[in-house]
Amino acid sequence: MKKFVNDPNQFVPEMLKGVALANPDTLRYVPEYNLIMRVDAPNDDRVSLVQGSGSGHEPAHAMIVGKGMLDAACPGDVFSAPPMDYVLETSKMLASPKGVLHIINNYTGDRMAFDMGKELAEAEGVQIKTLLVDDDVAVADSTYTIGRRGVAGNFFVIKVVGAAAEQGADIDELVRLGEKVNSVTRTMGMALTSCTPPAKGSPLFDLGDDEMEMGVGIHGEPGRRREKLADANTIVDELLEAVVTDLPYKKGDDVALMINGLGGTPIGELYILYGRAFEQLEARGIHVRRNYVGEYCTSLDMAGASLTLVKLDDEIVNGLSAPADIAIRTF
Amino acid sequence: MKKFVNDPNQFVPEMLKGVALANPDTLRYVPEYNLIMRVDAPNDDRVSLVQGSGSGHEPAHAMIVGKGMLDAACPGDVFSAPPMDYVLETSKMLASPKGVLHIINNYTGDRMAFDMGKELAEAEGVQIKTLLVDDDVAVADSTYTIGRRGVAGNFFVIKVVGAAAEQGADIDELVRLGEKVNSVTRTMGMALTSCTPPAKGSPLFDLGDDEMEMGVGIHGEPGRRREKLADANTIVDELLEAVVTDLPYKKGDDVALMINGLGGTPIGELYILYGRAFEQLEARGIHVRRNYVGEYCTSLDMAGASLTLVKLDDEIVNGLSAPADIAIRTF
Repeated sequence: MKKFVNDPNQFVPEMLKGVALANPDTLRYVPEYNLIMRVDAPNDDRVSLVQGSGSGHEPAHAMIVGKGMLDAACPGDVFSAPPMDYVLETSKMLASPKGVLHIINNYTGDRMAFDMGKELAEAEGVQIKTLLVDDDVAVADSTYTIGRRGVAGNFFVIKVVGAAAEQGADIDELVRLGEKVNSVTRTMGMALTSCTPPAKGSPLFDLGDDEMEMGVGIHGEPGRRREKLADANTIVDELLEAVVTDLPYKKGDDVALMINGLGGTPIGELYILYGRAFEQLEARGIHVRRNYVGEYCTSLDMAGASLTLVKLDDEIVNGLSAPADIAIRTF
Repeated sequence: MKKFVNDPNQFVPEMLKGVALANPDTLRYVPEYNLIMRVDAPNDDRVSLVQGSGSGHEPAHAMIVGKGMLDAACPGDVFSAPPMDYVLETSKMLASPKGVLHIINNYTGDRMAFDMGKELAEAEGVQIKTLLVDDDVAVADSTYTIGRRGVAGNFFVIKVVGAAAEQGADIDELVRLGEKVNSVTRTMGMALTSCTPPAKGSPLFDLGDDEMEMGVGIHGEPGRRREKLADANTIVDELLEAVVTDLPYKKGDDVALMINGLGGTPIGELYILYGRAFEQLEARGIHVRRNYVGEYCTSLDMAGASLTLVKLDDEIVNGLSAPADIAIRTF
């Protein structure tokens, strides 16, 4: 296993500790619950936004905690939902008079943990609502999912809802807004290689040297089909066709386009995908008004990418344009 | 080869085109010279900052062109210096009455291309000075280098010089400032895996499943030695010892710490390295005041990382704190 790791069982805690050490003025780490939270949360004037989900998708979600984005993340172990007591204790610690919003990617394990954690926290007087993200068009049901999976598109939901929360929007308004963004967001991903969970120490699945997995899930779940390895343009065209026809996005639409790397793909390659996707969308009369090229929701060291479209309107653009101050400081 | 690529010979142009398409309001792409430049350059009130070097190190340097950073990058092909006519034509197009500053990582090929390009451009009336970056402590001379190599530390030189250029500093002042930053910046990197250049289609060098290369260069050049694969803490401690003792950084120093991923390593692992490095520096009485965790100067899809320290003073902190608006828009 070619990874930076000490004890594989400490992979997630050591990573979270590193995130906290890098952001001492803005983030607080509570090791008991894998909890990364803003030091200024909860705030009486702001709904608290909480994401859990498994680890291994960084920067989602421990590294997108901060002003204008999440108030807290309480991830489980690699590719595992957080235990329900993480959700319970996190919800209690983040309890604001304006409430706590759970933002959940649609996986059965995550939903169970958050449903139970919510129920227990509500019994202790915390007001909680839930926002479900399910942007992946690849498959209707999946290994760990009833219904569509939630993948990289959850960035857009968090960004828009986070901006509104920062402005003091109430929890029902955030749910409305988040559901609206989710309803116009679609993603499909594909893998060139498998990934290696630290505790397993070997690749999660086998993929031949001349194969790729179209529609792969962010935990290595099977996608639509395994195909012969193709060139970049062919891959983009197939992802785009699947995504565009799903909503569908139509001629004259303004969209945000995200090319998201899955962890092992260098950013140079992602811009090759971006160029093709941009041109093909323009050819369809769909206008890319905002773009996101880089790693947003990864699968450990998997080589691969996903393509996300969001249909834009003024309300969504305002949210996406709002400032955010998160754990990742780039330049 | 598990890469997003069409024609390997078009890898760099297609990448650069993607960068330009993603930044239509701020960047201009001149395909003839692999040139990415700011649309508002040259500017009469600002020295123009130009970097060349090979491709395959993204985001360095085509993706760090923008306000507060570079005015232009004219990269060569993957791991190849730009042809001298790229340097010549870029220098002419970027000619400002305040001059053009070439920022060069210390590799023989790059120095030759820039020296010749400079001479030819000067003959046409362009005022040019040169800033050399050589932060890599791993080896004294190397495969492609007489003297030390320039690696990820060049980010700090560009950031501080870029901030001063934006304020209208003259070219001699920029040279003084850049040489000062370079003189207090030290880096060492290591590889867990090789990388695969698109045109070669196979790994650049062989590294056993139980091996790592300490002190590797960003083109896969051999480092200090090949060792048995070690855990994350051991790797950090070895990099840190090499870097700290080189300047040396001393008890009471304030530093910036960069953990730079080499392209194939996910950001979660980089934060594990960061946590260890931070704690070990504190134990030495060296205080980390600014941190940079992510990909800054990569080697295609190489799994690995480098560690950079910069000794801080007020002047350098001011430059690092200044705003920058570059091609990579993260959140």
